Amino acid sequence: MTRRHMLGTLAASAFAQPSTTRIDAARLRDHLEHLSVFGRPAGGTFADGVSRVAYSDADIAGRAYAMKLMEAAGMKPRIDPAGNIFGRRAGSDDSLAPVLFGSHIDSVPNGGNFDGDLGSLAAIEVVETLNEARMVTRRPLEVVVWSNEEGYAFNNGITGSRAAAGRLDPGELDAIWNGMKKSEAIRRIGGAPERIAEARLKPGAFACYLELHIEQGGNLDREGVPIGVVEGIVGIDRYDVEVRGFANHAGTTPMPERQDALVAASYLTIAVNDIVRREPGRQVGTVGQLDVSPNAPNIVPGLVRMVIELRDLSSAKIGAMGEQIRRRAREIAAQTRTDITVKPAAHHDPALATPEVQKTIERVCAKLGLRTMRLPSGAGHDAQAMALIGPMGMIFVPSVAGISHSPKELTRWEDCARGADVLLETVLERAA
Amino acid sequence: MTRRHMLGTLAASAFAQPSTTRIDAARLRDHLEHLSVFGRPAGGTFADGVSRVAYSDADIAGRAYAMKLMEAAGMKPRIDPAGNIFGRRAGSDDSLAPVLFGSHIDSVPNGGNFDGDLGSLAAIEVVETLNEARMVTRRPLEVVVWSNEEGYAFNNGITGSRAAAGRLDPGELDAIWNGMKKSEAIRRIGGAPERIAEARLKPGAFACYLELHIEQGGNLDREGVPIGVVEGIVGIDRYDVEVRGFANHAGTTPMPERQDALVAASYLTIAVNDIVRREPGRQVGTVGQLDVSPNAPNIVPGLVRMVIELRDLSSAKIGAMGEQIRRRAREIAAQTRTDITVKPAAHHDPALATPEVQKTIERVCAKLGLRTMRLPSGAGHDAQAMALIGPMGMIFVPSVAGISHSPKELTRWEDCARGADVLLETVLERAA
Repeated sequence: MTRRHMLGTLAASAFAQPSTTRIDAARLRDHLEHLSVFGRPAGGTFADGVSRVAYSDADIAGRAYAMKLMEAAGMKPRIDPAGNIFGRRAGSDDSLAPVLFGSHIDSVPNGGNFDGDLGSLAAIEVVETLNEARMVTRRPLEVVVWSNEEGYAFNNGITGSRAAAGRLDPGELDAIWNGMKKSEAIRRIGGAPERIAEARLKPGAFACYLELHIEQGGNLDREGVPIGVVEGIVGIDRYDVEVRGFANHAGTTPMPERQDALVAASYLTIAVNDIVRREPGRQVGTVGQLDVSPNAPNIVPGLVRMVIELRDLSSAKIGAMGEQIRRRAREIAAQTRTDITVKPAAHHDPALATPEVQKTIERVCAKLGLRTMRLPSGAGHDAQAMALIGPMGMIFVPSVAGISHSPKELTRWEDCARGADVLLETVLERAA
Repeated sequence: MTRRHMLGTLAASAFAQPSTTRIDAARLRDHLEHLSVFGRPAGGTFADGVSRVAYSDADIAGRAYAMKLMEAAGMKPRIDPAGNIFGRRAGSDDSLAPVLFGSHIDSVPNGGNFDGDLGSLAAIEVVETLNEARMVTRRPLEVVVWSNEEGYAFNNGITGSRAAAGRLDPGELDAIWNGMKKSEAIRRIGGAPERIAEARLKPGAFACYLELHIEQGGNLDREGVPIGVVEGIVGIDRYDVEVRGFANHAGTTPMPERQDALVAASYLTIAVNDIVRREPGRQVGTVGQLDVSPNAPNIVPGLVRMVIELRDLSSAKIGAMGEQIRRRAREIAAQTRTDITVKPAAHHDPALATPEVQKTIERVCAKLGLRTMRLPSGAGHDAQAMALIGPMGMIFVPSVAGISHSPKELTRWEDCARGADVLLETVLERAA
């Protein structure tokens, strides 16, 4: 047993019942505001966002604050060899695998105060709330704050959770960034890089991983839906494309003689857009980076380098779009007398959320009278690493206008509280 | 009268006659090779090209060499206030306006040994040849070496000849480049910036301006035609284009919600290409410069800045193409939900060669048994400034594969000699 709490809702609803175990919205807000100080621009306010890049002094200060909150919530924080912070709350049957939940608190430079922070502090708030309600779950609970999710440092993110999933890249700890070796950076935040293999979680190490996060897209905000039930984190295929034409004088080279790399690249950019939009579905495809050489007004472009990125929950769909793009690239090269190479540069498998966990979240929301919407996560999250080793579920809350990685990133306090309550209820269901 | 020379030709031809006044091909080559030393890369050879940027030490050394050659040819070189070098050879009637001919000897960095150098040294060679043949023209002759044609220095070329045409930009002498003021730069090469207005040539200052130059395009080389008769120097309209979309997460922004500036810019790049190619003619249009912002693989492009350049001998055609492009830009903006501004950034009128001078060149070539081809110059030349104040004609010789502004720039010695002979004969006709 142990679920002695009563169900209720913040908003008026058909299911409304007296609330005995709701999270403390004011305390959660207070903690988020307090955390925002670490990495805040000098002289700024909460609205000026945060620069709490992983391994920085601001990150270290923020982590210390999170550990203080964990201690206040009765958890003894420990740092694993990868620099992840864990805090455990005992269950009534401690021989069972715990429910693991949390997020990250590092940010991009000039980022916002909700991406990661909300899921991390809401996880601690869940434990505080259970403490106050004197509720004990059957399974133990583990709160986690992952290290370096954003990957601005070392251009490689989801670091702590990948270490926990045993998926660090070979030689990754030797990477240098800003004159610092990654192993030193991990040591800086209290990790032990020489023992990083020990950070790996064994199969069955958790019963379920849950993460609350802002939706870094505008779907929930646009639809006015308070809770998103994440179907999975999309897979990503990235291609490095090189279009080779011939640089020549823009005044003296007749049009029929040209081998204009930018004209060819333009056809390919439009082809990517057309191929991705052709079929129904939520797949996306982007040419976000494109560099022209020599890039002078009076020279016919000789070389264009561009990056094509394709994302979807289905690996098969990503692969099929990639194949269509390659075929079209060959046609464009022939038509424009250029040479186009399309080289696979990165491949990330989709990480599907566990159907049963999605259903738990939906059930919980129905009880709380909160509308939900299933949707994929187009952005990467620590949850994708956890999905490799156990059941996973993610809860999204709206981000105003879908803005993130910006000081303008904003999730309304009531949405933060709703999300934390859904996390609380989901933890209780999965830990029962 | 004075045309006592005999006509002849280098190649066997129906018009072949004993040559008494042919330029000295070996001497011209020797002078070109000697000039190439000034600005040659350390340890390099003639094939390694030259960096003789205007106002540099290499330029000053090259100019000193050109003045030495002028003196050897019996001309007393004088430097005008703009830094142009003139050398005069008396005619039998010195009250007449002279025939003015020459070119420039400054180069782009890593340029070739023919662009400008050929026309300058061939002009001196013409005088040498006349001296040796003891021929006196009716009109006096003026050889000129213009200053800073390339405009790599101060990003603004055709400087000396524009000063002579009274077309310097307001405040141009105050421009700063590489920590040097343009007025100081002009003083460095022997000019007198405080008296620059005196560099202006009065109306009727010359009877005709002639310039021999390599064709900075591949037309003559491709067609195997030794002499190009320039119809004019094309006009140029340049537009600065800004495509404003909305930068957003490439993973989380659904395709229908996107305002992708690069997709819009791609449509516009293709539109420029299509509009320019649609009609017959030699007009050209180029998007040579394009910059994407923020230019990251995982961000939908929010802003693209690009430059559209249109060139033709007809101002009306350039204007009409520009109008079509603006119209298409409006359609593309509406279709892609972006904002596109097309702002005129530069306008250069075409400079037409004088029909009578073109005919003189063709007549001379017919006598020499040289095939000719009329063609526009897509590149700018000092001749365009001279066309503003008097009759103008230009003689082109083939540049192998149309390559210029490169150490690989190459005009065969026999083509150099042919061009110099055509210059000689044309000078004789026009100075008669």
